[in-house]
Amino acid sequence: MLRVAVCAPSTPFDRDDAVRVAALAQDHPGVEIVFHDQCFAQEGHFAGPDALRLAAFVECASDPGFDAVWFARGGYGAGRIAQDALGLLGPAARGKAYLGYSDGGVMLAALYRAGIGRPVHAPMPVDVRREGGEAAVRRTLAWLGGEVCGLEPSLDGAVPAVAFNLMTLAMIMGTPVMPDLAGHVVMVEEVSEYDYAVDRLLFHVTAGLAAGKAAGLRLGRVTQVPENDRPFGISVEEMARHWCARAGVPYLGRAQIGHDADNRIVPFGLAGTPQGQ
Amino acid sequence: MLRVAVCAPSTPFDRDDAVRVAALAQDHPGVEIVFHDQCFAQEGHFAGPDALRLAAFVECASDPGFDAVWFARGGYGAGRIAQDALGLLGPAARGKAYLGYSDGGVMLAALYRAGIGRPVHAPMPVDVRREGGEAAVRRTLAWLGGEVCGLEPSLDGAVPAVAFNLMTLAMIMGTPVMPDLAGHVVMVEEVSEYDYAVDRLLFHVTAGLAAGKAAGLRLGRVTQVPENDRPFGISVEEMARHWCARAGVPYLGRAQIGHDADNRIVPFGLAGTPQGQ
Repeated sequence: MLRVAVCAPSTPFDRDDAVRVAALAQDHPGVEIVFHDQCFAQEGHFAGPDALRLAAFVECASDPGFDAVWFARGGYGAGRIAQDALGLLGPAARGKAYLGYSDGGVMLAALYRAGIGRPVHAPMPVDVRREGGEAAVRRTLAWLGGEVCGLEPSLDGAVPAVAFNLMTLAMIMGTPVMPDLAGHVVMVEEVSEYDYAVDRLLFHVTAGLAAGKAAGLRLGRVTQVPENDRPFGISVEEMARHWCARAGVPYLGRAQIGHDADNRIVPFGLAGTPQGQ
Repeated sequence: MLRVAVCAPSTPFDRDDAVRVAALAQDHPGVEIVFHDQCFAQEGHFAGPDALRLAAFVECASDPGFDAVWFARGGYGAGRIAQDALGLLGPAARGKAYLGYSDGGVMLAALYRAGIGRPVHAPMPVDVRREGGEAAVRRTLAWLGGEVCGLEPSLDGAVPAVAFNLMTLAMIMGTPVMPDLAGHVVMVEEVSEYDYAVDRLLFHVTAGLAAGKAAGLRLGRVTQVPENDRPFGISVEEMARHWCARAGVPYLGRAQIGHDADNRIVPFGLAGTPQGQ
């Protein structure tokens, strides 16, 4: 039995959705999901104040009774606790997988930088709300249970990879939670940002990846782009090619990640399952 | 007579507004404004393609017949030409002031990094569209004419300063156009970003300023914050204090800059007028 603790480093989840996710987990007999009560706390924008979110994450990560920590959802807030969390983790934190994406990428980044456990870009409990989202949630449950069919298809087990929301990666570059991505394939996806903002982010991120000697960039899906008063005139793949060429970062093509039900799994580093690390 | 060329490195201006700005300039007999035709070009999001915007800026900057280059408006696009422009400027570019803000900050940053001319955070022609915006446009015209009453009040002539839109500064950090801000007071302002995005930007920017040994941060106005589905729960000044403290960057208080009619002038480096550099 693989026991998974769910906590919310960013924004609050709700109990009805937690029940739906727990029901899906019934079909994965090798996996048991335990929602920490902090998932349902709320203070302003966040799933409780910084101290509560920090304490819940540290508790889940340090508890030897859990094999993995799954972030309930993103939103914003992980960046306010990630750095502090690292110094508080017990020895059991090192043996776990940590799963999530979007704002949860800040936690994954901080853990990867510190060499703690196995950070994994993966669908989250909140994806149950999407159309077709049960399949996304099941993808993570299946991976936790040892299946590899949900992995991002370009992962070859030879070159280390990471996956991030583009804005999240842009905001951690140059901060104390930014990992060393030398030699890594870096996959990025975005949601709800204007075309001009995506172009601007790619300028920033490709410069940072060039400085950090990344192996290359793969472009995930860029969805729910707000309509501006006039068309931008450049496609998102053209933007990626442009900025990769400018920065001298190899553009490696597309990646099957995004804020959608088809979001695939990208274990940070070399691909594998929790059992086969 | 101080001759000022106006060009548009980012998004297009329009001819009616240019006429209004030219009319305001009539009251400043020491200043002559010349709008480059490129200001009115349009291709997709931009004031013409990258090559046209680049050529117009280089032409204005390199022409010994002009004493200053004023950016018509921001929006987005300067980052696509700023780095290339530096290598193309003629010797006359070194003796000029360059004025603008918002996305125009990318040009100011690139010029400041290269030590070319005098970059100045200042109201732009587009500000004529704001309520009370004529006063903003006149503030720049008056400064060009030698008056100092429009300067940001905290400027003391002893510590070098710069001013940026927060997102603009965040996006140039770590890129080839980012200037050395060691020992500088860095003023930031923001518009039309969610509270959570401002918090996230301050995390990123204060980390970068700490690494770059800036003298401190001053917080300008943060306006037109979109309403989220719930209140953020932390004021923008609390955010600035929080992240400055975390990063070890002195928080120096407020600055009178912003996307509004009261936006004050911040010459990069030590304050002065074009005549008194």
